[in-house]
Amino acid sequence: MSLESDLALANRLADAAGAAIRPFFRADCAHEAKADASPVTDADRSAETAMRRLLEAEAPRDGIIGEEFGTERAGAARQWVLDPIDGTVSFMAGRPIFGTLIALLQDGWPILGIIDQPIAGERWVGAAGRPTLFNGKVAGTRTCRSLADATLATTGPQYFADHDGEHFMALAAQTAHKRMVFGGDCYNYGLLASGHVDLVVEAGLKLHDFAALVPVVEGAGGTMCDWNGEPLHAESDGHVVALGDPARLEDVIEGLACNH
Amino acid sequence: MSLESDLALANRLADAAGAAIRPFFRADCAHEAKADASPVTDADRSAETAMRRLLEAEAPRDGIIGEEFGTERAGAARQWVLDPIDGTVSFMAGRPIFGTLIALLQDGWPILGIIDQPIAGERWVGAAGRPTLFNGKVAGTRTCRSLADATLATTGPQYFADHDGEHFMALAAQTAHKRMVFGGDCYNYGLLASGHVDLVVEAGLKLHDFAALVPVVEGAGGTMCDWNGEPLHAESDGHVVALGDPARLEDVIEGLACNH
Repeated sequence: MSLESDLALANRLADAAGAAIRPFFRADCAHEAKADASPVTDADRSAETAMRRLLEAEAPRDGIIGEEFGTERAGAARQWVLDPIDGTVSFMAGRPIFGTLIALLQDGWPILGIIDQPIAGERWVGAAGRPTLFNGKVAGTRTCRSLADATLATTGPQYFADHDGEHFMALAAQTAHKRMVFGGDCYNYGLLASGHVDLVVEAGLKLHDFAALVPVVEGAGGTMCDWNGEPLHAESDGHVVALGDPARLEDVIEGLACNH
Repeated sequence: MSLESDLALANRLADAAGAAIRPFFRADCAHEAKADASPVTDADRSAETAMRRLLEAEAPRDGIIGEEFGTERAGAARQWVLDPIDGTVSFMAGRPIFGTLIALLQDGWPILGIIDQPIAGERWVGAAGRPTLFNGKVAGTRTCRSLADATLATTGPQYFADHDGEHFMALAAQTAHKRMVFGGDCYNYGLLASGHVDLVVEAGLKLHDFAALVPVVEGAGGTMCDWNGEPLHAESDGHVVALGDPARLEDVIEGLACNH
């Protein structure tokens, strides 16, 4: 398959996921706080089912790694990585800043990625060697002359194990911490690709949480890596940095290495 | 003036603020991280100016307390409280979860409030003795049978002074902390009024940050108070609780009183 047809298929996957998700947004029938502390919604399952159905029909030899329904054809060189709702907590709280993540890996390396926000109708599409598109228009990260000017985003302090939290805070203290934004999950990486946020730092991410982000951020002029500055691939350990201005990479890695 | 005409005026204020704000959203001309650590955008000022112009024309005897341009007619029994962009940090990061806040105080007590999100086109309107409306439809909070089931929202841990942070964390540990959401500012209170979030706890809020929230939350069946359970008015100290199900109020106040 060509990159062109892969991109067309990936966009159809995002369309199908969005159509499956929208009816469930803010449609809490019970209208009562739920006891389930690790929410997996009907929306999640029905969106992944819709995407898997398309993949089985249109790319039957490719592997699939899905958040909800596991792995198919683990040995395939090409693997589609699906996270129907990244930001389940935001979704359940009625915030339109969750996203559907779709990635294509070639030999474990992400070569195509989509971040789709189906309520606001916002889609970032990245592919190796191409400019990232936001709703069809070229997106670009912004310049950041110093870490002290950087707007940092992260989903929440509770997602860091204790040790990681100290390193994160050491870095955060060097950024424009009055502008630090919390919450957001994958949406933060889209905003970075569009030049509204400078830096996203997280830990504990799974492959389906980060694979799609890499082509989006890199195609927009940014860089993504782990906390040691190493590129992200299928075996990365889930410590993730996204940086709009690659000129600040050394400062960020140094900031994270310090823990006091 | 009747409540009806006050509501009509308040809606026109929100319309005017939204029209002033929208052109500035994600329109960062410099396309570079800004050095200003306490961002006050052109959007903020132009929205407050538009609202003040309307108030001077249509309610010239009422007082005005605005975030950007201060107080007019401080002695008036009726005071309009304006926060053109609550959630400036979210606005600057390109997130559509900031809001315009408009309140009317009678003798220091909030009797009318609007939370308006001008990008998503979402508006919550509350007034004493009336049901809260979300985009024209009646909104209601949801039942929460136990604190352990409660979804808690707060804008960010950095907004608590040290001592406040300990009390907040003591309470947070008793809630469904895996579903805790960060970020959101006034938008969290709208989501609570619509039954998607159970509890919002913050500190350090100014009058213009909280006055509009009270009629919205209470008209939806929830309750708002300070951290001691006292009702909120112009002299409150900025420690704020919003709770969808008033039956949990005692648990919340007890949870906040504990600091270990």
